[in-house]
Amino acid sequence: MQLVTIDDVRAAATRIRGDVLRTPLIPAAWAGALWLKPENLQAIGAFKVRGAFNAIARLDPELRARGVVAYSSGNHAQAVAYAAARYGIAAHIVMPEETPRVKIDATRGHGAEVVLCGAGRREAVAAEVVERTGGVLVPPFDHPDIIAGQGTAGLEIAEDLPEVEHVFIPVSGGGLASGVGTAIRALCPGATVHGVEPELAGDTAESLRLGHRVDWSIEDRNRTIADGLRSQPSELTFAHLQRVLDDVITVTEDEIRRAVRDLAQRAHLVSEPSGAVAMAGYRRVAPAGPAVALVSGGNIETALLRDILAA
Amino acid sequence: MQLVTIDDVRAAATRIRGDVLRTPLIPAAWAGALWLKPENLQAIGAFKVRGAFNAIARLDPELRARGVVAYSSGNHAQAVAYAAARYGIAAHIVMPEETPRVKIDATRGHGAEVVLCGAGRREAVAAEVVERTGGVLVPPFDHPDIIAGQGTAGLEIAEDLPEVEHVFIPVSGGGLASGVGTAIRALCPGATVHGVEPELAGDTAESLRLGHRVDWSIEDRNRTIADGLRSQPSELTFAHLQRVLDDVITVTEDEIRRAVRDLAQRAHLVSEPSGAVAMAGYRRVAPAGPAVALVSGGNIETALLRDILAA
Repeated sequence: MQLVTIDDVRAAATRIRGDVLRTPLIPAAWAGALWLKPENLQAIGAFKVRGAFNAIARLDPELRARGVVAYSSGNHAQAVAYAAARYGIAAHIVMPEETPRVKIDATRGHGAEVVLCGAGRREAVAAEVVERTGGVLVPPFDHPDIIAGQGTAGLEIAEDLPEVEHVFIPVSGGGLASGVGTAIRALCPGATVHGVEPELAGDTAESLRLGHRVDWSIEDRNRTIADGLRSQPSELTFAHLQRVLDDVITVTEDEIRRAVRDLAQRAHLVSEPSGAVAMAGYRRVAPAGPAVALVSGGNIETALLRDILAA
Repeated sequence: MQLVTIDDVRAAATRIRGDVLRTPLIPAAWAGALWLKPENLQAIGAFKVRGAFNAIARLDPELRARGVVAYSSGNHAQAVAYAAARYGIAAHIVMPEETPRVKIDATRGHGAEVVLCGAGRREAVAAEVVERTGGVLVPPFDHPDIIAGQGTAGLEIAEDLPEVEHVFIPVSGGGLASGVGTAIRALCPGATVHGVEPELAGDTAESLRLGHRVDWSIEDRNRTIADGLRSQPSELTFAHLQRVLDDVITVTEDEIRRAVRDLAQRAHLVSEPSGAVAMAGYRRVAPAGPAVALVSGGNIETALLRDILAA
């Protein structure tokens, strides 16, 4: 299997420059020798714009003109809608009927056409939409262009803190961890790359331990508050993760909530639970050397944020 | 009177590089052609580190070794304590007895010695501490080195968005607005520089209208929720403001609360009320061209943040 290389990540960085925010590393001395990479400050509130812009930029212009299709109930939906709008092309986003209204409206707000579908039907419906519109499917993680795009965050970490010794990255479908891990492995070979998962959706930790992908039921994975971390790696991302991760740490729901609270109170960053797990993983390991935790997103319901801040 | 020049601001930028975060401009397309300058992400949660580092860096090393003294119940206290710690020198911070415990602890947390004093006595007590310790007073705004230091935020705005047409800056003692205004006037002469004040502490708006400083009682100024904007310009900062501001907009308490809410929900930034007034001013003016609102700080009590988010 062909894996994404650091050259692919560098090419992606050149391609998406001007379209995504180059986030700084924010010192978080209150937590140790820690820096935060605040991807929650991206236009749609999550790192997903990196992969979406790279994938769309890579399309043949004639093909691209037919528009793009994606299925997602979360940040990938908004990222593809946002990137498509910037390119002036149509976007059809397939979302489950039970998706919160606010996320459907946000996706429409970027000019995308939302196609609602029944539970478990989104991939099938997306295929129908591709058939009907001639648009190109932009997958959430299972594609080299997506992995390379997400990896640009790792390139920036290596540029800004070359002496980094520990990097903490959330793992779900594994696109972000694959890309960032690839960049860190290449540019900071001495650094340890930690994936972080909720204990309640710890399929990747188990899969890496066993050396092959295991399947956790969606009912199990849905137990975690970290709603952006309920996917599982594909064959492609799993092959990357086996190569670029040193370990996968799992964190409890309480640790995730505490991380959301600390990020708000100490770092002045609003994070969603999925966006705070890397911070929680840093706390768990508590390494001595310079470390980076990637804050992957900030799209949290206000009621949940208030609840977490009440503790 | 000698005013701070763009060369002073440039020199300050060189001096403090490496000590303060170079904050990016964050696109806030949800609010229009707006970019946010998130100074709430600085180490102590506010822009004040810029002036503090510049002032301390400028001291003669022999003098500096005697330590520094400051009076403040707010972000300046922590900024001076933090900068002094980085320089490895002593810091004495005079704080009113009624200062919230959490702020006293945070200041001590940076290694400073906190000297508590009665209401209205802080300048006198600070003078005593200077006399006793031989330390140097670092004033919160009434000094060219402080103004030049705060102005580095304006230099960065001009570098990152040279086509900016409107800049919104909170005004209290006026150090930040003086410095940022100086940089914008010099580098983006076509831009309009708006100071923003709470209506309930609108002394500078009135002073500029009348052409001379007016004094509002501290009881009046204390009415606003924006506890960092209750100071009044000095002769030095007022002279700068007369020269570099195009106007001062006043905003209501409700507008300030809405801005705190929007910054959390849409920009994923935790701001304190004082830190959100520039955003509120932007909303009030609603200009068409590219605009920047400076988010000056994020040190808000959690209970207040929860209350504002409940609306």
